Amino acid sequence: MSRETLTPQSESFADWYNDVVLRAELADYSPVRGSMVIRPWGYGIWENMQRGLDDMFKATGHENAYFPLLIPMSFIEKEAEHVEGFKPELAIVTHAGGKELEEPLVVRPTSETVILEMYGKWIQSYRDLPILINQWANVMRWEMRTRLFLRTAEFLWQEGHTAHATAEEAQAHTRLILNVYRDFMENWIAMPPVTGLKSDSERFAGAVETYACEALMKDNRALQAGTSHFLGQNFAKASGVTFQSEEGREEYVWSTSWGVSTRLVGGMVMTHGDDAGLVVPPRLAPTQVVIVPIYKTDEERSATATKAREVEGRLKGLGVRVKVDDRDHMNPGAKYYEWERKGVPFRLEVGPKDLEKGSLALARRVIPEGEKRKLFLPENEAIETMAGRLEAFQTRLKEQAIARREANSHRGVTDWNTMREILEEEGGFVYTGWSGDPAVEERAKEEMKATVRCIPDPEFATPEAPTTCISGEGEAKYEVVWAKSY
Amino acid sequence: MSRETLTPQSESFADWYNDVVLRAELADYSPVRGSMVIRPWGYGIWENMQRGLDDMFKATGHENAYFPLLIPMSFIEKEAEHVEGFKPELAIVTHAGGKELEEPLVVRPTSETVILEMYGKWIQSYRDLPILINQWANVMRWEMRTRLFLRTAEFLWQEGHTAHATAEEAQAHTRLILNVYRDFMENWIAMPPVTGLKSDSERFAGAVETYACEALMKDNRALQAGTSHFLGQNFAKASGVTFQSEEGREEYVWSTSWGVSTRLVGGMVMTHGDDAGLVVPPRLAPTQVVIVPIYKTDEERSATATKAREVEGRLKGLGVRVKVDDRDHMNPGAKYYEWERKGVPFRLEVGPKDLEKGSLALARRVIPEGEKRKLFLPENEAIETMAGRLEAFQTRLKEQAIARREANSHRGVTDWNTMREILEEEGGFVYTGWSGDPAVEERAKEEMKATVRCIPDPEFATPEAPTTCISGEGEAKYEVVWAKSY
Repeated sequence: MSRETLTPQSESFADWYNDVVLRAELADYSPVRGSMVIRPWGYGIWENMQRGLDDMFKATGHENAYFPLLIPMSFIEKEAEHVEGFKPELAIVTHAGGKELEEPLVVRPTSETVILEMYGKWIQSYRDLPILINQWANVMRWEMRTRLFLRTAEFLWQEGHTAHATAEEAQAHTRLILNVYRDFMENWIAMPPVTGLKSDSERFAGAVETYACEALMKDNRALQAGTSHFLGQNFAKASGVTFQSEEGREEYVWSTSWGVSTRLVGGMVMTHGDDAGLVVPPRLAPTQVVIVPIYKTDEERSATATKAREVEGRLKGLGVRVKVDDRDHMNPGAKYYEWERKGVPFRLEVGPKDLEKGSLALARRVIPEGEKRKLFLPENEAIETMAGRLEAFQTRLKEQAIARREANSHRGVTDWNTMREILEEEGGFVYTGWSGDPAVEERAKEEMKATVRCIPDPEFATPEAPTTCISGEGEAKYEVVWAKSY
Repeated sequence: MSRETLTPQSESFADWYNDVVLRAELADYSPVRGSMVIRPWGYGIWENMQRGLDDMFKATGHENAYFPLLIPMSFIEKEAEHVEGFKPELAIVTHAGGKELEEPLVVRPTSETVILEMYGKWIQSYRDLPILINQWANVMRWEMRTRLFLRTAEFLWQEGHTAHATAEEAQAHTRLILNVYRDFMENWIAMPPVTGLKSDSERFAGAVETYACEALMKDNRALQAGTSHFLGQNFAKASGVTFQSEEGREEYVWSTSWGVSTRLVGGMVMTHGDDAGLVVPPRLAPTQVVIVPIYKTDEERSATATKAREVEGRLKGLGVRVKVDDRDHMNPGAKYYEWERKGVPFRLEVGPKDLEKGSLALARRVIPEGEKRKLFLPENEAIETMAGRLEAFQTRLKEQAIARREANSHRGVTDWNTMREILEEEGGFVYTGWSGDPAVEERAKEEMKATVRCIPDPEFATPEAPTTCISGEGEAKYEVVWAKSY
């Protein structure tokens, strides 16, 4: 990695984003249109996300399973809204094993249809319910305009699919998962979302209700970071999935589905990154602390390397993910640039003077206001306080992100032109009343390229509920959050 | 799960296999030809395999990454042997996003071509080498005759791809991985393989050398359970992947690739299963100990449930994966059958008498010869010895499997008819001399449906090397292992 600077965020946030994703080696363009390669640093972050989420899913009673990549076209067509939503984006296998297939197979864009079909085989009575299954998989949606992590033809995700005996239980589960997502985004990615219900126009194709996590990026655009769908009996009816109830009646099951994807990596980038590169929250960082030995002579090299390995061993023992960068062909400055660009939370420097003094220099990827660039700490203190410092850094990133989101949330806006000015000049979240008329959404889309991100959950709602629709026509049926979005 | 018995192994091993995979809920047939659904119990075993292997890969310096599912047809065609080997099995995407594609894309059957292409972008000089990357992914090979886990159109696997500056380093890496696989199979799956070099006819399409792990199943047929390929400069030349050497010369990199798949789950089934169902080695078992409360009255139910939860908590604290089966609509006997079928290593029973005595009944999935079916142990002893018992059980499964493999290995066979009789009547591994003439392999395939599984590594070779070829014609160039295989 060279020292060339990234495009500054202020010059072009989009160019900065591409620069940092490529040059922090998170991902690369592949020779296949719209598909990306996730490089080890990016995949390591995704693995940490997977581990964190998977533990949360298991703690809430879910098991993992695996369903087929290829789905018969006729399955996708079973649910009318579903096929309408997904058909334009399908990749289709027409030939296999040297022959044309009798029925084309689609590369899964999502798996409701095939999973519900299997649930139909496994469910007889209420005793077989609920089924709480999650799948980690790749999916494919043929997008015309792709962006690394944010919108790619192929992406990695988890898709949860549950089946329940009652509507109430399924609805509660949709909510439960929304809260798992929110918890994960706040406490792992330090990317605090606003949660709420999607308007009809933004609902998942085939769902009764879609709940979403909407996070605000540093360029003041919203990122839909995760969704949880209450599917009612729509897919159960399409696939004929019934069960015998406790009262002996034959009933359709109620289902939910929910997912987050590698898009979250893009969200992390745009929540914390700066002109020096990525900032990776400690819980997600494949390497939390990098140790750089500094030396001129061979003797110094040997002595600093020994100390670096010793410190590495002690930090590992304390559960810190740590790495010594002992590449001999790079000078320390080049290493600093590289690890800053990659967003490693902390760097420890071990030089000859540190050996003399028994100290270590600690450089933090983000320097708290009013503090010095580096801290010079006694070795033991540097080591023993490291886990706590990482936790504090994680918390600080979250607090900063909440503060930024709130500073860019405009509440109580009642005038169409004010909303437009805010969205065009600053961006951010604009809270207004809405009559529920889709024509208002259409107009906002045309005039200011903004959409209703969600009807915010009570926790995020403005204490004084709006009374009039932002359009100026009609009463407010809901409070909604508007934003330009990814 | 009903109490119907499985097809006995002695009646039909193939039917027993299908019965147990389906009825232990490892997997199910999907509506998509040749693709299976991996159910939570089977996927949980695969997850434990992944974790074990992944730790070994990381300990040997590898990182994970992710490459595209779809590969341009022209890439597959770059390496002549490679395309010849894989073309008949390809699934091909011809349409996407509502249009016919200009160039068809194949669903990856393996990823050498696209990964080497990317390495070409990332490698400039010897300082960028070695690259040690692994990918966990799904792949697709359109098979005509499929069997759950053993041969499916889609399967899950890991594929490692490394690039090196010298042939020696790449060859050593091929070997290193073979040993990682062997270690994993022996100590996690308790499925001890014979390792060795493949003959030319069984080499990976495009490789210079293929090393394999060959395990012997309970029906005395061999299962190729993992392969590690030295690819020479074949793929580097096909994709033009060069680097500047330390001496400043432009050279092609040397590459390796290696993989194991969900086939390992099938291997586990056929290594340890019996007429009662699966036997899952403790390291792979999603649940290592199941606790079944036994009660008649409500009072007993409440008391045994409390004790079961208490024991569960203590075992969890000791790192044991434990589960209480408190389903109220099933009697204990039905639960025993189910967990035996699923192969859970140990079962603890908590009944009213146990509460009185402060004891627990321990039932082991495989009862050591001469021991009683159940052990009645003081509660503390049952809990405190559990981790040790699980380790011992793991070791015993391995030792049994080694003993079975050795008992069914026929060494020093020098006569063609003797080999045929052994392979037709008993099966197993037959060690003979071989001239290296492919015509001998052809004849064995036709006459006894057997193949050269490998040229065994020194550790597995017969101390007294054979001198004549099993065909009766010519000298033995190698000792080889013959078997009928999956």
